[in-house]
Amino acid sequence: MARWEPNARGRLVLAALDLFAEQGYDNTTVSQIANRAGLTKTTFFRHFPDKREVLFAGQQVHSQLLADGAAAAPDSATPLEAVAAALDSLTASFTAEQRELGPRLLTVIADNPELQERAAYKRAALAAALTSALGKRGVPELTASLAADLGARVFDRAFDRWIEPSSQQTFTELAQEELQALRTATTALG
Amino acid sequence: MARWEPNARGRLVLAALDLFAEQGYDNTTVSQIANRAGLTKTTFFRHFPDKREVLFAGQQVHSQLLADGAAAAPDSATPLEAVAAALDSLTASFTAEQRELGPRLLTVIADNPELQERAAYKRAALAAALTSALGKRGVPELTASLAADLGARVFDRAFDRWIEPSSQQTFTELAQEELQALRTATTALG
Repeated sequence: MARWEPNARGRLVLAALDLFAEQGYDNTTVSQIANRAGLTKTTFFRHFPDKREVLFAGQQVHSQLLADGAAAAPDSATPLEAVAAALDSLTASFTAEQRELGPRLLTVIADNPELQERAAYKRAALAAALTSALGKRGVPELTASLAADLGARVFDRAFDRWIEPSSQQTFTELAQEELQALRTATTALG
Repeated sequence: MARWEPNARGRLVLAALDLFAEQGYDNTTVSQIANRAGLTKTTFFRHFPDKREVLFAGQQVHSQLLADGAAAAPDSATPLEAVAAALDSLTASFTAEQRELGPRLLTVIADNPELQERAAYKRAALAAALTSALGKRGVPELTASLAADLGARVFDRAFDRWIEPSSQQTFTELAQEELQALRTATTALG
């Protein structure tokens, strides 16, 4: 039976981000990540299918949080109000540790086209999950997919602001602000 | 000196799509693609860096067409009117052959997560090029990126409709219709 490893997942993420930053993503192996975390390769593979997914492992959980939040909005909520509820649900799940790791995560992704592609795909998957949740509320498909895309955009923008060391607001507050700004911007499209 | 190969690029694309459809993307090699097209591997690599890029080779040209179209819109054009001009410029460049190959292209991409990631990245790159072109027109960044994203979305939707065998309208006409539909949908976001 496997030993219980306290916070193995978090230690693996931290070790991976450190190694990617130090020696580059391409030069880092799963063995090195496991070693740095004081864990075995077997433990690594219990948590992640490969080194890339260390960076994107939240995709399914995040999709579910968005869907749950949108589903829980009042029946009277407009599409963007349901998006706001979805973002509240997702952003509230983020921890201080994720905030601290944020800048390293974004730097690693920005330095590697393969990871940028994967990040774009994750963004599309989150937007698809939110589109589907809005569809279940009776929002027409085109409006739902537009609203979901605004939600994904708000998430990215709020995350960028939240991980700034000088930021004083919560992730949820920042997402609400960004959603309001985007809502205003849609009225200037012409 | 290299022999001149009539329409080598088009023949390689066609051969690649045929092979991907017949035996799968992962099982197809550059040598097989070149053979099927009656060309050499050397010729292949004069046109594409690897087999994947056969499917996405238009990215830079498409970005430029969008940027040129947006730049050529009248000074008085709203952000969405400049997007319409960008889409006119891009869609007018598509050929009957591209229309015919469209369904095979979409099927190959839909069957392969790596290609879906690459497709999402191409979409993001096109949207970034359009955002930048709108920025040069003085459109504020947030409005520009929203408008560009609508443009990318319109392109995808119009392409899906255009490649339907029963479609009677031009790609450009379909893009104009889809842009109008999205414009209406933005007013229902709430």
